[in-house]
Amino acid sequence: MVESDRRAHRLTALRELLGRADLDALLITSLPNVRYLTGFSGSNALLAVTAKECLLITDFRYETQVAEEVGRAASVRIESSNLWTGLWSALPAMAGVDRVGFESAHLLHRDFARLLEQGTRWTWRPTTDLVEQLREQKDEGEIARIERAIGMAEEALSRTLQTLRPGLTETQVAGLLERNLRDAGSEAFPFDSIVASGPRSALPHARASDRVLGTGDLVLLDFGAVAHGYCSDITRTVVLGRADETQREIYDIVCEANRRASGAIRVGMQGMAADAVARDYIAARGFGDAFGHSLGHGIGLEVHEAPRLAKTVEAALTAGSVVTIEPGIYRVGWGGVRIEDDVLLTAQGPRVLTGFSRDLLEIV
Amino acid sequence: MVESDRRAHRLTALRELLGRADLDALLITSLPNVRYLTGFSGSNALLAVTAKECLLITDFRYETQVAEEVGRAASVRIESSNLWTGLWSALPAMAGVDRVGFESAHLLHRDFARLLEQGTRWTWRPTTDLVEQLREQKDEGEIARIERAIGMAEEALSRTLQTLRPGLTETQVAGLLERNLRDAGSEAFPFDSIVASGPRSALPHARASDRVLGTGDLVLLDFGAVAHGYCSDITRTVVLGRADETQREIYDIVCEANRRASGAIRVGMQGMAADAVARDYIAARGFGDAFGHSLGHGIGLEVHEAPRLAKTVEAALTAGSVVTIEPGIYRVGWGGVRIEDDVLLTAQGPRVLTGFSRDLLEIV
Repeated sequence: MVESDRRAHRLTALRELLGRADLDALLITSLPNVRYLTGFSGSNALLAVTAKECLLITDFRYETQVAEEVGRAASVRIESSNLWTGLWSALPAMAGVDRVGFESAHLLHRDFARLLEQGTRWTWRPTTDLVEQLREQKDEGEIARIERAIGMAEEALSRTLQTLRPGLTETQVAGLLERNLRDAGSEAFPFDSIVASGPRSALPHARASDRVLGTGDLVLLDFGAVAHGYCSDITRTVVLGRADETQREIYDIVCEANRRASGAIRVGMQGMAADAVARDYIAARGFGDAFGHSLGHGIGLEVHEAPRLAKTVEAALTAGSVVTIEPGIYRVGWGGVRIEDDVLLTAQGPRVLTGFSRDLLEIV
Repeated sequence: MVESDRRAHRLTALRELLGRADLDALLITSLPNVRYLTGFSGSNALLAVTAKECLLITDFRYETQVAEEVGRAASVRIESSNLWTGLWSALPAMAGVDRVGFESAHLLHRDFARLLEQGTRWTWRPTTDLVEQLREQKDEGEIARIERAIGMAEEALSRTLQTLRPGLTETQVAGLLERNLRDAGSEAFPFDSIVASGPRSALPHARASDRVLGTGDLVLLDFGAVAHGYCSDITRTVVLGRADETQREIYDIVCEANRRASGAIRVGMQGMAADAVARDYIAARGFGDAFGHSLGHGIGLEVHEAPRLAKTVEAALTAGSVVTIEPGIYRVGWGGVRIEDDVLLTAQGPRVLTGFSRDLLEIV
């Protein structure tokens, strides 16, 4: 199936959801949702989808790019100033449109106020997750792109570990890693790379600082690549020098928690049940309080998307999801270990897409 | 003045604005606004400011970080799940609060719905630009950080140009540039670096592609650094090899437009008047249709913030603003030239903070 057919298929599926929700149209303001349906990757767009039409509104800066990216997936309207002006011009001409959904999680109050003030001839209804639920089930084209982004991340990690040494700052290591990601072909960075060493590795959301790496440090690297818009997200924690007994013990627990969760996750399982596989094991080994975040999240056009693998998530996992599995143990003042893989859920079981070794690496 | 005094000063100024707007409190959901007032740089926060209190709500992942960053600028509440739960617990205890402003441009409809459903005992009022108008006037600490971020960007550009050569892809050049930014100490990248060569330089919002640089190409580099949260944003366009007559002619026009705008911009001038200085010159030289974007924008904690220098902006510029001046000429199929500097507006006149040469560089 070619990309244009995939997009047509997505639009058909969305129209079915609109029909079931008793909506004549959907106004899409989430840029990843716009990209999913049309291929447009610019930073400014509105998309209106009705039973028969699909109208993309963007600005003059993207005139060349939008024509190349969108093809026949949507009709395109170029605005010289405000996109909303384009919407109020175009919407009255779209036939049979009365009840219009909008994306409650992706529309600012300021723009919601526009709907109430300038869109009085339509009935506006908040929706959540209509496009997101489609995006949760990746097609083969999307999976290929994620695999490509994973390959880039793994290649970059390999090369970076060859040059990791005491005396570099975390920021310099981030620079090495990011250059290697670019050399591997990454279009962008899906999030600020995390390079956290020594006690800083205990901060689950540390970025990179000017801390100098020393012998004996844990070094946690959490980063990703982007291929044709699709993200990877992986973490490895290494020891600079020889690991001591505590480092080895904690590493082994996290590694086993990762292995168990990646092996046990299944289509139909609740997000909370997947989370519990890793969490219960870590707790049984005596570190229940030290795993202070959720097990994982979906990846795709965004680095955090549906589904979530967390204590409170009752929703069942679906085939075609790609999720991170990223248990960790963090101890303030000592440091932390996290091991994160990207896993595809299929009807036949989980497939771990990350091939990079999970053995404890001692950089000597 | 130390940073904690600066923060206290900002809070006092905000409280004056609240008083004038007849508000008892402001709910702040913009993360850059939270950082400006409290120093907190995490990715999940709500801030409530009343005449006497300043309450920051974040989640358990940031427990260590928030204590280090915020100090006495705010009282901190850590939530284990949803920040809004914390707000509904804390707000009733805040004295004298009835009319509460919220940030219309930074509150999603989904969260606005929470205010209406769960916040029925308060009167909610949309506000715009309350904190943003304070942020527009940088204090000396902020200017020093922006200057540091500019220095990092210039150092990285110098080093990158030394290795620029035909045969590299745009993505590889981005990797070189980003590594040099990290080596210069940049905490992050304020936006996806743009490396656009040959005909691709005509796309004002190109990122980096796998296009291979060739001799004779224009190469446009638009990128920035981050120092203590503050951004720089600069663009230089070079020629790989010897410039031909057309490249030289267009470069000179853009360079002169940059020089004129940087020299003429003044406190009290309207944003549209600053834009016109460059635009009118480019039009007079016969390229009026080829400068398809605005002259510039403020930089600070965000890479795009107030004020804007654009055709439609009537607001007057204020002392302490730092703005980009970035005229360009773009011709589809041929390429584009943009030269972007960062300029501080003072009561004594403009001060161009970017020191990097604006002469046409031929990389041979």
